[in-house]
Amino acid sequence: MATRANSVPHPTLVEGIHNRWHPDIPPFATVKPGEVFKVQCVDWTGAQIGNNDYSDDIKNVDLTKIHNLSGPIAVEGAEPGDCLVVDILDVTPFDKMPWGYTGIFELENGGGLFAREFKSKAAKAIWDFKGVYATSRHIPGVRFAGVTHPGLIGTAPSPELLATWNQREGELVAANPNAVPPVALLPVSTGAYVGQDLPDDVRAKIYREGARTVPGREHGGNCDIKNLSKGSRCYFPVFVKGANLSVGDLHFSQGDISFCGAIEMAGIITFSTSIIKGGVEKFAMKQPIFLPSPVDPLYSAKLIFEGISVDLHGDGKQYDMDATVAYKQAALNAIAYLMKLGYTREQSYLLLSAAPVESHVGAIVDSPNACVTLALPLGIFEHDILPKDEGLTKHDYGQCAIRSDGVV
Amino acid sequence: MATRANSVPHPTLVEGIHNRWHPDIPPFATVKPGEVFKVQCVDWTGAQIGNNDYSDDIKNVDLTKIHNLSGPIAVEGAEPGDCLVVDILDVTPFDKMPWGYTGIFELENGGGLFAREFKSKAAKAIWDFKGVYATSRHIPGVRFAGVTHPGLIGTAPSPELLATWNQREGELVAANPNAVPPVALLPVSTGAYVGQDLPDDVRAKIYREGARTVPGREHGGNCDIKNLSKGSRCYFPVFVKGANLSVGDLHFSQGDISFCGAIEMAGIITFSTSIIKGGVEKFAMKQPIFLPSPVDPLYSAKLIFEGISVDLHGDGKQYDMDATVAYKQAALNAIAYLMKLGYTREQSYLLLSAAPVESHVGAIVDSPNACVTLALPLGIFEHDILPKDEGLTKHDYGQCAIRSDGVV
Amino acid sequence: MATRANSVPHPTLVEGIHNRWHPDIPPFATVKPGEVFKVQCVDWTGAQIGNNDYSDDIKNVDLTKIHNLSGPIAVEGAEPGDCLVVDILDVTPFDKMPWGYTGIFELENGGGLFAREFKSKAAKAIWDFKGVYATSRHIPGVRFAGVTHPGLIGTAPSPELLATWNQREGELVAANPNAVPPVALLPVSTGAYVGQDLPDDVRAKIYREGARTVPGREHGGNCDIKNLSKGSRCYFPVFVKGANLSVGDLHFSQGDISFCGAIEMAGIITFSTSIIKGGVEKFAMKQPIFLPSPVDPLYSAKLIFEGISVDLHGDGKQYDMDATVAYKQAALNAIAYLMKLGYTREQSYLLLSAAPVESHVGAIVDSPNACVTLALPLGIFEHDILPKDEGLTKHDYGQCAIRSDGVV
Amino acid sequence: MATRANSVPHPTLVEGIHNRWHPDIPPFATVKPGEVFKVQCVDWTGAQIGNNDYSDDIKNVDLTKIHNLSGPIAVEGAEPGDCLVVDILDVTPFDKMPWGYTGIFELENGGGLFAREFKSKAAKAIWDFKGVYATSRHIPGVRFAGVTHPGLIGTAPSPELLATWNQREGELVAANPNAVPPVALLPVSTGAYVGQDLPDDVRAKIYREGARTVPGREHGGNCDIKNLSKGSRCYFPVFVKGANLSVGDLHFSQGDISFCGAIEMAGIITFSTSIIKGGVEKFAMKQPIFLPSPVDPLYSAKLIFEGISVDLHGDGKQYDMDATVAYKQAALNAIAYLMKLGYTREQSYLLLSAAPVESHVGAIVDSPNACVTLALPLGIFEHDILPKDEGLTKHDYGQCAIRSDGVV
Repeated sequence: MATRANSVPHPTLVEGIHNRWHPDIPPFATVKPGEVFKVQCVDWTGAQIGNNDYSDDIKNVDLTKIHNLSGPIAVEGAEPGDCLVVDILDVTPFDKMPWGYTGIFELENGGGLFAREFKSKAAKAIWDFKGVYATSRHIPGVRFAGVTHPGLIGTAPSPELLATWNQREGELVAANPNAVPPVALLPVSTGAYVGQDLPDDVRAKIYREGARTVPGREHGGNCDIKNLSKGSRCYFPVFVKGANLSVGDLHFSQGDISFCGAIEMAGIITFSTSIIKGGVEKFAMKQPIFLPSPVDPLYSAKLIFEGISVDLHGDGKQYDMDATVAYKQAALNAIAYLMKLGYTREQSYLLLSAAPVESHVGAIVDSPNACVTLALPLGIFEHDILPKDEGLTKHDYGQCAIRSDGVV
Repeated sequence: MATRANSVPHPTLVEGIHNRWHPDIPPFATVKPGEVFKVQCVDWTGAQIGNNDYSDDIKNVDLTKIHNLSGPIAVEGAEPGDCLVVDILDVTPFDKMPWGYTGIFELENGGGLFAREFKSKAAKAIWDFKGVYATSRHIPGVRFAGVTHPGLIGTAPSPELLATWNQREGELVAANPNAVPPVALLPVSTGAYVGQDLPDDVRAKIYREGARTVPGREHGGNCDIKNLSKGSRCYFPVFVKGANLSVGDLHFSQGDISFCGAIEMAGIITFSTSIIKGGVEKFAMKQPIFLPSPVDPLYSAKLIFEGISVDLHGDGKQYDMDATVAYKQAALNAIAYLMKLGYTREQSYLLLSAAPVESHVGAIVDSPNACVTLALPLGIFEHDILPKDEGLTKHDYGQCAIRSDGVV
Repeated sequence: MATRANSVPHPTLVEGIHNRWHPDIPPFATVKPGEVFKVQCVDWTGAQIGNNDYSDDIKNVDLTKIHNLSGPIAVEGAEPGDCLVVDILDVTPFDKMPWGYTGIFELENGGGLFAREFKSKAAKAIWDFKGVYATSRHIPGVRFAGVTHPGLIGTAPSPELLATWNQREGELVAANPNAVPPVALLPVSTGAYVGQDLPDDVRAKIYREGARTVPGREHGGNCDIKNLSKGSRCYFPVFVKGANLSVGDLHFSQGDISFCGAIEMAGIITFSTSIIKGGVEKFAMKQPIFLPSPVDPLYSAKLIFEGISVDLHGDGKQYDMDATVAYKQAALNAIAYLMKLGYTREQSYLLLSAAPVESHVGAIVDSPNACVTLALPLGIFEHDILPKDEGLTKHDYGQCAIRSDGVV
Repeated sequence: MATRANSVPHPTLVEGIHNRWHPDIPPFATVKPGEVFKVQCVDWTGAQIGNNDYSDDIKNVDLTKIHNLSGPIAVEGAEPGDCLVVDILDVTPFDKMPWGYTGIFELENGGGLFAREFKSKAAKAIWDFKGVYATSRHIPGVRFAGVTHPGLIGTAPSPELLATWNQREGELVAANPNAVPPVALLPVSTGAYVGQDLPDDVRAKIYREGARTVPGREHGGNCDIKNLSKGSRCYFPVFVKGANLSVGDLHFSQGDISFCGAIEMAGIITFSTSIIKGGVEKFAMKQPIFLPSPVDPLYSAKLIFEGISVDLHGDGKQYDMDATVAYKQAALNAIAYLMKLGYTREQSYLLLSAAPVESHVGAIVDSPNACVTLALPLGIFEHDILPKDEGLTKHDYGQCAIRSDGVV
């Protein structure tokens, strides 16, 4: 009768770290459709960042090694052209590691949305996980519920798809040879890793050809979509036998647009899967589609900033319907507002990446100005941040973690 | 005791149509802060489009005359540098005109997000307003609650600001001289209109210099933000004495991104205003900010499509972190899915513009692929549209209104 | 081409006031399934309450005349046993009458939830409608979006059903002969009214037998459900040929539990209908069921009060699983809290009835204490009302409208 | 640099089971304000119910032993008259026990809302926890996200408060001496338990006087409020030095009104606390108040059933404004509807208790009929359950777990 006696925990899969996409990486485990299982993930850098008050680890991070992914996991019966249905049943930090971080990366090592505008120097915020909430000693005055999700999840590419990726990204780099940071990261053996026994020639081929994990692509990958969260159901196209799902880069929270990093964490993701035969054709899939979760945080009251495709915070240049420029203006407007409240530019930049900020594409047809909005949830702030007749009350929130040499 | 005897309706302002932005257009009315008032608006084209089953009126629309705005309305006490707080208290169609339309414009006359990809020919859908809902005989099988809003609302520019607009947009056109449709619409006297008595030289100056109303700019303008809806509160920067607010282009509904037009309507907007002295400096405003409405439609269940900045629906070209390209892919993925359900490409295109579709910018830091999502609310469909093992059920939904010559 | 020329407004039905339920009241109009139509409604008292600053009209209200209903409206093809599907497409105040009221009725004339506890004297608040919002000069510091709905809507009873009502309510009154206010209002010719030409004997029969309109019953009726609002779809059982739908008692807003009256208004309701043959049997209907609206106001942040079935605000008596007592405690806890913020007891009582307060039945199985909660939406208050270390800030909000003799 | 090295997990408190409320039960642990800590809880019955397919364990459950609470936990500095702020940071099942149950109790042993109407025989459903979701082999066709919460949480009573409870409940029992099940459970030494070393006389006093844990009371207690969930913040009155918080009866999910039991589970709850000095007076607290969580499941589409205070499913008797009767009618209407879909009465009864059903008190002032609504979330059903012209599709869902003798 003892209730624990007849309980069977869900199995946890804990091996299989790799950091490139390649069809020849063999599955380290195989699951059956319908089975519930868990996967442990290190943080995306492989534990290069510490819970401390300096950002030197961000400054010196080795990005050739990223992202550390768990997998591949083969699903019995999946074949190219099928749709792999993945239920993301839960995403949690490790009990023994109730913290994460958001980092601003140096212009020359990692970059980020405003790396060029801000000439970014390394900075970071450590976030403490308190159940469903995060707070930070580096960004006081805010507390928000996490929308936990994998920043990176995808199926393995076929050889043909991999070749396509490498070709098109190679052409982009060739067309922009001197960009800092580079416009794309091409395959490189340095730092490449597959944590399984492999014949030397296979390993060398994977390291030589394997696609880097930074961008999202047709298979999913590093899409950094906050709403692909615990409770969501995702439909992936299958390109190789077994589908070979890999996952990593877990986030405790993120805004729409992780522009300098989400709240990065190590932890456990719980899955179940099923297969829809021929789903790619049935659903006209060129990329994943998904159903969002009913348990995403609900903050209905918001303050919304607009941005258009004119560089109003820079040289005033008019762009042609460029939503990225428009997004940047909305974000810079929000940062300027947060600075009026007493946050530093670095704190504001980190907060917008970490908190459940929403960004909508408003209009993209009214030439030449795309219009993008960015919504700050009011409920995450300890103080009332709404516009008042008397202006905004400025608090002293200190500064986030910066380099030990004091350079910001 | 009779209740109607002691009632005073809110006043309605009904004159003041103009279709250019210029500081010299005098206010046609002045209101006091705190006063509730209504403004009547014609539809953006000035009644060029009819409630019928052909799209010839779309094909032949005269776009030099748009947008027909109501205003300017001066607010007592507003001065440059102030923040004009505008409560959008209600937005309704005229009782006598319970319908609106969504149009696909020809590549050569109006264009739209996919004008080039689709070599667009004129098409449209007429929407019937049934209280809070819209349905269309041209797009059967859907019904949704309207998120009524002004597509276009803004304060008048100062002479300096107007000059800036004209210069930067002129430079963009100069750099793209042969674009079809043009990358921006520059001032042109043809079609210009101010429905007030004006000295000839003032009128000529306004017509010659007045900024076109198509794009949103620093003052608001044609931002086409669906959440700037009835019940929202908007904070505008003030550039001229009185602020000189103008409004028009009312929409019954729209998705994030009105990529071929919202549900356009004529109707009435109800406002009240207040002024925050020096608000531009107090809130670091370069553009409007706003608080969304508590009465926007809530459809919590969604099907979400992803898009990255690779032209997967075209030549496969890799773009560098281009959110516009990414948005297009997400939309094309959704259109492909809707076509599996039986809608034509034109119906799908119209539906995505008209329904309360949400589009979020997912990631914009993972070079080279920006990632954008587009969410279809499930609750607007009469039938279950979720992916099924057996595929999607295709219905016969006919076709939207097309040209009388049958060309699509 | 002129857009208004090809517009046809929805028809408005404006006759047919009656204030009793009886199968012999003939329909004053007949509609077809699918037709969109509007119905004008006076306020429930028939304009007895004025827009002024005294509550004498509440004190002296003649309640034998209520509720003033519009109808009956017959739907072609509806027969007993069918289900009448009613789409409540919109509910709006008259343009010319942008105000409503909430009243506290005297213990001896109307009563209310706390009539006995408070020995209620007449009081009221006038609410000004500003687009989707209501504010009151009698209850400063709050503004909320209306969840407009009919307090009263139902189909006509069959002779058998009417007889059942009159019998069971008669027995209840007989068992509680001296209750003040009475436990139920039985048929009475005084004040009865049917605004149609009728043979004398039919009119006399209706007046003599007609059920009073105060309680909700199997046919719907005065259920005062705030979520039966514009945008909702309601399924009613049909008891007579044509269904004979009547409606009235329009509310601009109301909390769960209109315990001293909602925001009462006059206005227009827009409907369409359809019929499901044999729906009563198909859906096992003993009472109406409905689908709520996607456009109800969303205030996600709330402060929630608990109540149990012990009269903690009175003599401390223990009741047996009585949810009504529990509800009262939750409401009294909320009133005590609001009084700490500076509202008077009368203002608090009125506010809880008028605002979109939510009340949930928590537990009803843990003998002997039922547990009910009452949730105040934070977003309706101008000031932050959350508990603070330093206690609550008390403002001077004056008093609501009271009797001209100053008695409260 | 190794990230795990500088991690400190939150402490877990694992002792202190007790099953009565009494001021003399000493705290088994003391925490500081601001500290994050976890508490392990057995299920409310103390593991009497097993993961199997018969309900004999429900039939034979020993209810003198319930509820098994963890605590008391003293908070440094809390004194009578203070307000104890409790952040419920997380509530999760044990990893090793990913299941829970909902039980229907026998009329003679446990009862429940419909124990008398249904002459209840023991039945149950086992729910499997799959991340944030629950499914049941005993109730196929549904899946829903859990709104995890403690069914029971409260501060210790003072001697005076305890005496008040025992007196008023004793009087109720005295007035209803023959009720089956009894109207309240009075103190009884049989089954009483405090898992700490205590002097014999203290233990005897506690066992003799200790209040039973079934009802919620002024201190919180067994309120079974589903929205007092992970992420909520609760304000409790303090009656003894240290506040002495106890918690138990964890639920994975529950509807408004746990009328035959929630999804009961064993697991871990994470807390932090703070103290507001003199909060009882500052906030006029007679009972707890709370802020709900931003991560409660959001199912916006619902089917809503009405109920009035007439026993339409029984003898048709008219009650006087009795919300409990009204609630029962709404629930019975929902059960009748679910049975049309193919669920048995027992499955329907279990489902309404376990799923995130919402129940609102509609009207409680329209004599003699209180009106209560019950809302079924549509998104939890695998199939479309909406009313259709052709009626409802009946599936074969089998039956829940029943007694091994087959009696239902």
